[in-house]
Amino acid sequence: MIDSLLSQTSEWLRGTGPNADIVMSSRIRLARNLKPYPFSHWASKKQERECLKAVHDAILVSKNLKKSLFIFMHDISDLDKQFLLERHLISREHILHPEFKAVNVSEREIASIMVNEEDHLRIQVMQSGFNLQEGWKVADRLEDELAETLPFAFDNKWGYLTACPTNTGTGLRASVMLHLPALVMTKQISRVIQAITKLGMVVRGLYGEGTDAEGNLFQISNQITMGQTEAETLEHIEGIIRQLIGHEETARKQLVKQNRDLVYDKIWRAYGTLKNSFIITSKETIHLLSMVRMGVDLGVIPNLDRKTVNELFILTQPAHLQRMEGKLLAQSERDAKRAAIIRSRLGS
Amino acid sequence: MIDSLLSQTSEWLRGTGPNADIVMSSRIRLARNLKPYPFSHWASKKQERECLKAVHDAILVSKNLKKSLFIFMHDISDLDKQFLLERHLISREHILHPEFKAVNVSEREIASIMVNEEDHLRIQVMQSGFNLQEGWKVADRLEDELAETLPFAFDNKWGYLTACPTNTGTGLRASVMLHLPALVMTKQISRVIQAITKLGMVVRGLYGEGTDAEGNLFQISNQITMGQTEAETLEHIEGIIRQLIGHEETARKQLVKQNRDLVYDKIWRAYGTLKNSFIITSKETIHLLSMVRMGVDLGVIPNLDRKTVNELFILTQPAHLQRMEGKLLAQSERDAKRAAIIRSRLGS
Repeated sequence: MIDSLLSQTSEWLRGTGPNADIVMSSRIRLARNLKPYPFSHWASKKQERECLKAVHDAILVSKNLKKSLFIFMHDISDLDKQFLLERHLISREHILHPEFKAVNVSEREIASIMVNEEDHLRIQVMQSGFNLQEGWKVADRLEDELAETLPFAFDNKWGYLTACPTNTGTGLRASVMLHLPALVMTKQISRVIQAITKLGMVVRGLYGEGTDAEGNLFQISNQITMGQTEAETLEHIEGIIRQLIGHEETARKQLVKQNRDLVYDKIWRAYGTLKNSFIITSKETIHLLSMVRMGVDLGVIPNLDRKTVNELFILTQPAHLQRMEGKLLAQSERDAKRAAIIRSRLGS
Repeated sequence: MIDSLLSQTSEWLRGTGPNADIVMSSRIRLARNLKPYPFSHWASKKQERECLKAVHDAILVSKNLKKSLFIFMHDISDLDKQFLLERHLISREHILHPEFKAVNVSEREIASIMVNEEDHLRIQVMQSGFNLQEGWKVADRLEDELAETLPFAFDNKWGYLTACPTNTGTGLRASVMLHLPALVMTKQISRVIQAITKLGMVVRGLYGEGTDAEGNLFQISNQITMGQTEAETLEHIEGIIRQLIGHEETARKQLVKQNRDLVYDKIWRAYGTLKNSFIITSKETIHLLSMVRMGVDLGVIPNLDRKTVNELFILTQPAHLQRMEGKLLAQSERDAKRAAIIRSRLGS
């Protein structure tokens, strides 16, 4: 079942869409809970089972979610759980206690709905490039349809009720994955992060909370949801992201103008190393892919498309390597397999 | 005049000859002094001038040294002096006090004769690969011819007299430049060097006395010359070099057998980096060229010949870069020029 994901490119990795040279992807997440049941952490096993069944039933009759994969977490191996995490379809929390948890993955992985995570439903929609509005439209449509059969907990004063008060209100979290190599190289990034944190934004790495910004990838999302309409939340984060894009663009232009050799050196060495390595760690891969992606985005490396680079960020993760090989691999085997896949994808 | 050297490949860099996969080059050096004059360090300016003229006259009538370049050290720029040093045609000592010093460079740089170095004549013959015998033949023939017109200082008891007693006797120093990456990678090299030092050998780096073995290149020569015939000296060092070649061959085979991925990784990354860098130091270049040369020698890198790699060891040195560019370059300019030349030579 999960094998079908392995052979396809997730929509958000396509490398297209507005500002795709700097914005890798946009994500909309809606938190919803069912009125009849306590929040997941306080629910009994019986309640969790009933809640899961209710959501599953609603998805089965959904027109928008035809051709979905509905995956029960307790049905799949640890490797497959890790695989779904690497594809950004589930959270770490969803792996730890798989009982009565599930995820529904829509066609081309545009939407994933986690069931019985912190909230009963976490509706997530991913888009390639800077495209929160399209993500919001898809998520809103999905939510509207599910609301026809599911009794979402809503309070006239507080809005949608959620397990954690930071999500109460619209339950909306908008986040954008930005690639900011030039702001990192010119040492402006800490100042930029400080500034946007003061504006109510949260900054994380490629794999969410508690992860480093490896590969110069920064996930930026809104901190609070209460007291704002969805439109206001989106407008606020969009304004900040537009400024960030501007800063990164300026930094890239300056770098190329003032330090052309240095930039070309970093980009081409990274490309040369990826095309020629036989042993490579995940950490080094992400760092080098970041440089190569900048090379593609600046037009320095011709004949290489952004999609190939984006895919490699995910394909070279441990569970993907093992899924492709069809068996568990020791770390040294993964480092060799990773290098082989990179060489093959980069056509060396 | 010196420009003509820039466009040709020195004989010893051709990458051919016996055991050329491990032995870069073989060198024979004969120290000779003229009876009428004190050793260079004690000679007056007048005596030095006369000695220089006597040697120059002898070379002018030599049949073996037709088509030579006779270069007066005080006639050339500091850059050109450095250039000759990088080509192994003169010594550091020859640069420090250029007055009344000269060097004669024969066709294809097979023989160079330094005049008024530590000894009045230092006849040096270079060969590609492990070929001391051929070098010795050429040097012996040259010396015989010069002895027809020059009165070499010779004592029936001590042999040829030299400024430093370690050269007295035959005045012969035989040395071999070995590329020993596998003995370095398998950490056997210190033990090997200790052993051959006990057998009366001296171990130096690429640029002689006091230089490190950068690029895994080791220059090995005999320590003493007294009490041995030329044939004995050659036989002794040849036996030791043959053993060293055997050790390196074994180490290479073991490495490939036990650590194929690691070896391929080091070789191909080095090649990829050299083909793709835009800024590179001399030190990094030599290290990477060493790995690439091993790749060529092991048949891992096809379509690249040893001569191209050997030449790059020399062409990427500072004075060569500046000679090619036709002007003095700052270090950052050299690092960029070096990278450009490597990319162009490796055809990327």
